[in-house]
Amino acid sequence: MNVNYKKKSGTARNKTHMSANVKKKNDNKPVKYHKPRGNVTNKRPKTKKNPQPKNKPTIRIMFLGGLNEIGKNITLFECNNDIFILDCGMAFPDGDMLGVDLVIPDFTYVEENIDRIKGIVITHGHEDHIGGLPFLLNKVRLPIYATALTVGLIENKLKEYGVLSQTTLNVVKAGDTIKLGCMKIEFIHVNHSIPDSVAVAIHTEVGTIVHTGDFKIDCTPTTGEMIDLARFAELGKEGVLALLADSTNAEKMGYTMTEQTVFESFERLFQRAEHKRIIIATFASNISRIQQIIYCAQKHGRKVALSGRSMLNYIHVADELGYIDVPDGVMIDIDLINRYPAEKIVLVTTGSQGEPMSALSRMAYSDHKKVDVGFGDFIIISANPIPGNEKTVGNVVDELLKKGCEVVYESMYEVHVSGHACREELKIIHSLTKPKFFIPVHGEQKHLRKHAELALAMGMEHKNIFIGDIGNVVELNDQYLKQLPSVQAGKVFVDGSGVGDVGSIVLRDRKHLGQDGLVIIVATLDTENGNVISGPDIVSRGFVYVRESNELFDEVRNRVSDILDDCAYENIHDWTTIKNRVKDDVSKMIFERTKRSPMILPIIMDV
Amino acid sequence: MNVNYKKKSGTARNKTHMSANVKKKNDNKPVKYHKPRGNVTNKRPKTKKNPQPKNKPTIRIMFLGGLNEIGKNITLFECNNDIFILDCGMAFPDGDMLGVDLVIPDFTYVEENIDRIKGIVITHGHEDHIGGLPFLLNKVRLPIYATALTVGLIENKLKEYGVLSQTTLNVVKAGDTIKLGCMKIEFIHVNHSIPDSVAVAIHTEVGTIVHTGDFKIDCTPTTGEMIDLARFAELGKEGVLALLADSTNAEKMGYTMTEQTVFESFERLFQRAEHKRIIIATFASNISRIQQIIYCAQKHGRKVALSGRSMLNYIHVADELGYIDVPDGVMIDIDLINRYPAEKIVLVTTGSQGEPMSALSRMAYSDHKKVDVGFGDFIIISANPIPGNEKTVGNVVDELLKKGCEVVYESMYEVHVSGHACREELKIIHSLTKPKFFIPVHGEQKHLRKHAELALAMGMEHKNIFIGDIGNVVELNDQYLKQLPSVQAGKVFVDGSGVGDVGSIVLRDRKHLGQDGLVIIVATLDTENGNVISGPDIVSRGFVYVRESNELFDEVRNRVSDILDDCAYENIHDWTTIKNRVKDDVSKMIFERTKRSPMILPIIMDV
Repeated sequence: MNVNYKKKSGTARNKTHMSANVKKKNDNKPVKYHKPRGNVTNKRPKTKKNPQPKNKPTIRIMFLGGLNEIGKNITLFECNNDIFILDCGMAFPDGDMLGVDLVIPDFTYVEENIDRIKGIVITHGHEDHIGGLPFLLNKVRLPIYATALTVGLIENKLKEYGVLSQTTLNVVKAGDTIKLGCMKIEFIHVNHSIPDSVAVAIHTEVGTIVHTGDFKIDCTPTTGEMIDLARFAELGKEGVLALLADSTNAEKMGYTMTEQTVFESFERLFQRAEHKRIIIATFASNISRIQQIIYCAQKHGRKVALSGRSMLNYIHVADELGYIDVPDGVMIDIDLINRYPAEKIVLVTTGSQGEPMSALSRMAYSDHKKVDVGFGDFIIISANPIPGNEKTVGNVVDELLKKGCEVVYESMYEVHVSGHACREELKIIHSLTKPKFFIPVHGEQKHLRKHAELALAMGMEHKNIFIGDIGNVVELNDQYLKQLPSVQAGKVFVDGSGVGDVGSIVLRDRKHLGQDGLVIIVATLDTENGNVISGPDIVSRGFVYVRESNELFDEVRNRVSDILDDCAYENIHDWTTIKNRVKDDVSKMIFERTKRSPMILPIIMDV
Repeated sequence: MNVNYKKKSGTARNKTHMSANVKKKNDNKPVKYHKPRGNVTNKRPKTKKNPQPKNKPTIRIMFLGGLNEIGKNITLFECNNDIFILDCGMAFPDGDMLGVDLVIPDFTYVEENIDRIKGIVITHGHEDHIGGLPFLLNKVRLPIYATALTVGLIENKLKEYGVLSQTTLNVVKAGDTIKLGCMKIEFIHVNHSIPDSVAVAIHTEVGTIVHTGDFKIDCTPTTGEMIDLARFAELGKEGVLALLADSTNAEKMGYTMTEQTVFESFERLFQRAEHKRIIIATFASNISRIQQIIYCAQKHGRKVALSGRSMLNYIHVADELGYIDVPDGVMIDIDLINRYPAEKIVLVTTGSQGEPMSALSRMAYSDHKKVDVGFGDFIIISANPIPGNEKTVGNVVDELLKKGCEVVYESMYEVHVSGHACREELKIIHSLTKPKFFIPVHGEQKHLRKHAELALAMGMEHKNIFIGDIGNVVELNDQYLKQLPSVQAGKVFVDGSGVGDVGSIVLRDRKHLGQDGLVIIVATLDTENGNVISGPDIVSRGFVYVRESNELFDEVRNRVSDILDDCAYENIHDWTTIKNRVKDDVSKMIFERTKRSPMILPIIMDV
């Protein structure tokens, strides 16, 4: 997208230059959270800065993730040959990525440009913003800058993967500005579904870029302050060169309800639950939500127990860093819940997305070691299904209902609010920051388009909006925004301990095997003359009930015997030719009989 | 659920007896639609009717499908040893039924009781009500009774499967009553998303049972009459022993909007589309919707072309039987669309659920032979995603947007209305029919529960409501409703031409293969001494990139060699023991190295 600047470029330029001189609101120096472990790499760039910049300086933005996808957010900003990384997330696999545990970004570009990269800035502690860190730090050493809760969660994760020594963790707070190379990164407080979330303003000599991170506007949050709208407004006044904003809810009309709505709903439902045990499933990272549950439980004289590994992890970190207030005597261990009457218990659990191995799923399918559910349980699912999870969540609800539980799951009960800004909130950010250029981020194509349409409707010019894809690079200054040749980017699959060793061929085979199963044909042949010494034997898995299909398998065996005899007779000793003949013939035969196409694997041993 | 009758049983009994003598509104004799093909079986029951019925006579209802599931609707009604089948549908496989094409009911009970079964009554022509017929008629001969459009669609389907000669197709119309054994089945016109849908009132000496089939209340339908509410009211006055009603939308508040809303939306969108080609994806069976598109196209001077095999099928049948009005010169063949300017074309297509092989998906992924889409296309998705399809529909929308198409898919545009009654409509049917007993049908557990709660809220007693499962049998008369021992029922998987040859073991293997792939270990051993003659060879599929894993495979090969040598040395000649040793050892080794558990298949050939 080649955009030419028009008219009053002088003014705009002054504006952006002004914004580069923004005063620091707080002490500029990042607080060291931990002593650096091992050899901390925080190298100054070895490459020389271009001594005579031709024309005007520019900023480059490299999108390695987060466009045309939900999750795996990672963006690189470059100015005067200095680069920093904003967020480093993972994504969950789609249904067609069989057996894949996680999806992470392709870090090739980062590795190849490591000596120009000054550090990693993280906006908040959700997996789609921090989940890629262990894999990146397995390859490179870089310092990380984030707010205290985010740093706490990152530290936990890096410890688990054994890569904590690859980084220094630097705690910042909203209002701080840090310097990475020639860029100053200012942290701005926003509301989201995890505390301590920030947006960033990137101040450069070229101009200021605002990246919202994940955000929403909650004027009455239950914990923490409301989003620092005033700072967004100030930046807008000073001049924002480009806005990159969260598009997750760009399809949703109106406003995201305040988190307080949920408290009121909990109040009503706690009353309705009366003598029943209350079980609430929610996102483990939604610390404000869990805080509300704790307060509500205390008010109603109930004890709170936690179920699910990630729930315990998050609350442990939040508690240690003071992000959650647990009144004395409210929390009990899950092992103790049966010592109290049902009406004195609230169990907070993972599994709000119906994940098969989660605590709530285990309860639903009678597979939980410590909790049996039934008529005495009042279950609240305090979350909306993430697109793609509707069916699994529905199945868990059905199972709980069959067990006699009362289940509150519908949106009408207002037991959940989103963490992302809806259309009216997005409009507020657009109108406060008044950016010259706009790039919608964090979303699939439909979200990015809707967000772009919103910007258009607010009067922005079409040519000043860029809808990108991963790998895209844009260059901009106050005169233009243009797309440069793309860099390497993609989806790297993590399966077990393997990173990147599962790709399209392996997935294609998995799909084939999963859909139709396989038929293996083994025979031992005489190397000399190709005569059959042993076999052919037929082994099948995932194809048909073997015991009921003897006739079919006998036919296959006879057919293969004939083919092998023919080959010996014709003096064909090339195993590949023989295998192909067997494969083609058997595939055809099986399809005719069954209208199915299992994978056919002929194996020839020679003696 | 054992329910005892209370108080005024006499009155109720009179009521139900009255309803058995209901006058036939129309000629009672079913119209023969086709001459019977082959030997029509419409046997009188061979089993003697119980000569001295002990106590009062009863009706039995056997649920073979449609409870705790969406689709696969089939219910049997029995009175005085006569049985008839209501609907015979199929269901689409869940995500965990890998490779399964369709799911049909277990027909064992039908086969075992075939000489007592008088026929099959079908409420409407949707797959979840007729899709099981070819498979049932492959086993038994039975006459079918349905309205004209439904019969036309069934005829098409049975021809395709080559089982048309197994039945007589009898056309009835709303208002007709037919006699099957001692039961009289009256057909009542309802609104739904396919024309010619009916509910049934089953009149017996025991009382009248009303089964709504799939229905909604549309007071201003775009084709056909509104639902015959008056008849439901009349039946209510006469006395309804039991109501079985559609629960699909029992979670949804309010009313389903009238189909006319969609026409108004189309009007607006046709104007907005201006010079673009319009492509509308909807359900092929939604003939009223397609009728509206045809009228709207005519009004705006556009030609209509159809894409997708099922779309052509449905419209062909509807046109032949006069269920759709195609004005002269409006319809053109899809091959001719490029002869007209874009603004003169409306293309109606299948694929509103994002089905991978459907016409719309092919367009989105540039795989359609006849249609290329891009900037000149205005695409309307006139359907809501069925739960579980949200992600695939979203992916298709994203691809279309990336191609530059304008896509209208959100519910706010009102381009779709449901075919099922929402809560307020359900209340109307409950209040008109005033049943003694209520059994919610057609839905998952949550839908059945919500529907039962609605009945409770309307004043029905808890003990008069039965929430069942497939296989359940209830017996009722004006004194009680009680559950009898269940009969055989279940899900039979159709995969290719195989019916029932894929079960839990095959699916378990498919899942394992699909998630983790497989490693085959083959060796030829000397029968005499167990010495390795050839191999061991390792073959893997769907596990890792083989070329990058030579080291791992070498390790496995060496390890297996050692095991085989050990076994030969230890004089172990039992192949099963050897295979188990290999399997256990290799599984462990691979898991340690990769944290994955592929299927391990040791194969030993002996010479």
